[in-house]
Amino acid sequence: MKYYAIIVAGGSGKRMQMDIPKQFLLLKGLPVLMHTIKAFSKSIFHPEILIVLHKDQHNYWTELCKRFDFQIPHTVISGGTERFHSVQNALSTITEESLVAVHDAVRPLVSEELINSCFKNAAEIGNVVAAVKAHDSIRLLMPNGKNKALHRDDVYIIQTPQIFHSDVLKEAYKQDFKITFTDDASVVESIGQEINIVEGERNNIKITHPVDLQFATLIVSGV
Amino acid sequence: MKYYAIIVAGGSGKRMQMDIPKQFLLLKGLPVLMHTIKAFSKSIFHPEILIVLHKDQHNYWTELCKRFDFQIPHTVISGGTERFHSVQNALSTITEESLVAVHDAVRPLVSEELINSCFKNAAEIGNVVAAVKAHDSIRLLMPNGKNKALHRDDVYIIQTPQIFHSDVLKEAYKQDFKITFTDDASVVESIGQEINIVEGERNNIKITHPVDLQFATLIVSGV
Repeated sequence: MKYYAIIVAGGSGKRMQMDIPKQFLLLKGLPVLMHTIKAFSKSIFHPEILIVLHKDQHNYWTELCKRFDFQIPHTVISGGTERFHSVQNALSTITEESLVAVHDAVRPLVSEELINSCFKNAAEIGNVVAAVKAHDSIRLLMPNGKNKALHRDDVYIIQTPQIFHSDVLKEAYKQDFKITFTDDASVVESIGQEINIVEGERNNIKITHPVDLQFATLIVSGV
Repeated sequence: MKYYAIIVAGGSGKRMQMDIPKQFLLLKGLPVLMHTIKAFSKSIFHPEILIVLHKDQHNYWTELCKRFDFQIPHTVISGGTERFHSVQNALSTITEESLVAVHDAVRPLVSEELINSCFKNAAEIGNVVAAVKAHDSIRLLMPNGKNKALHRDDVYIIQTPQIFHSDVLKEAYKQDFKITFTDDASVVESIGQEINIVEGERNNIKITHPVDLQFATLIVSGV
């Protein structure tokens, strides 16, 4: 079986109130995206790495790779309007039957162990998404405008990696984009597939706000 | 109308892998619980502050108040087995009709503005809980063991303060403890009351893991 990792960098950086997209921000002196690529390159499954970047960012990325002497082999693919279209673009380049991990570029703290356990489990049970249980109380807004408590133990906060068989993922991504497609699992679920959850990592955070980067720095520094 | 703030410190500190309970850890040189009390003492509603601590911690708290020359008036109440029982104990000391805010001791970053807007809204509409929308994809475990995606925009991650009319809160807390009572809203909801949600704050985090304290330090330092 062949293994792929599609690393999706959607962000234009608007939410960070910075000019530089989040995936290029420096985390302990290295761009976030390079941390993410490094994590996948260490996996014992040796996935082929595809990174999806807005085409306006390709030259800047080439420049960064030179500046940081970044040698890990990877293919750069052009992003689409939504994350959905970015994954679609990357998938269209995969022709072999394979297990495909999709991962957010801005989750640089994913561990080699989590990546390995996700690939291993997906190989056995067909698909997996990493997730952690909710620590906080959770409420769900109902169609009537009221809200109700959910049982916290039943609520999973979904992370990436999310790993699927290439055939299933390609089939799912033939659909038109819907606003409810917030991750790959929701796309795959909508063609009738059940999703398997594996235990993710608390530290596997998404760099969304400036403070997240500071938080990531603390973790990388082993606080 | 009179206003109360019940600040509940349940933790024995086990999850922090430290000997010192989380509410006593130093955040920028001051115990977490003192930050929390300070936030409420600044409110324009001047709530009477009740803090609930395990009785084994009362002497240590008195000592801390001396050491830090902590002058903000507050009453110390003994905690119970579960958070539920701690709130019950505090409630039993409230005899006047009032608006009662319940707040986690380990959410020291709550802003004066959020506290004020919660009291203001609760006075108008009866009760409120602070909450933020989920940023991540969310899945719900079903009774059949499968899971399904929820619409992220419909999912609220609940924080404190949670503010209720004293009569309603007292009525709700007459019930026996149930494992699904993870916060005050769930207790009040179970006697048939609808819960109102107000916009909380991303930074209003719960200090649960060691790294949360580092994160809080960054926020307090204005990163």
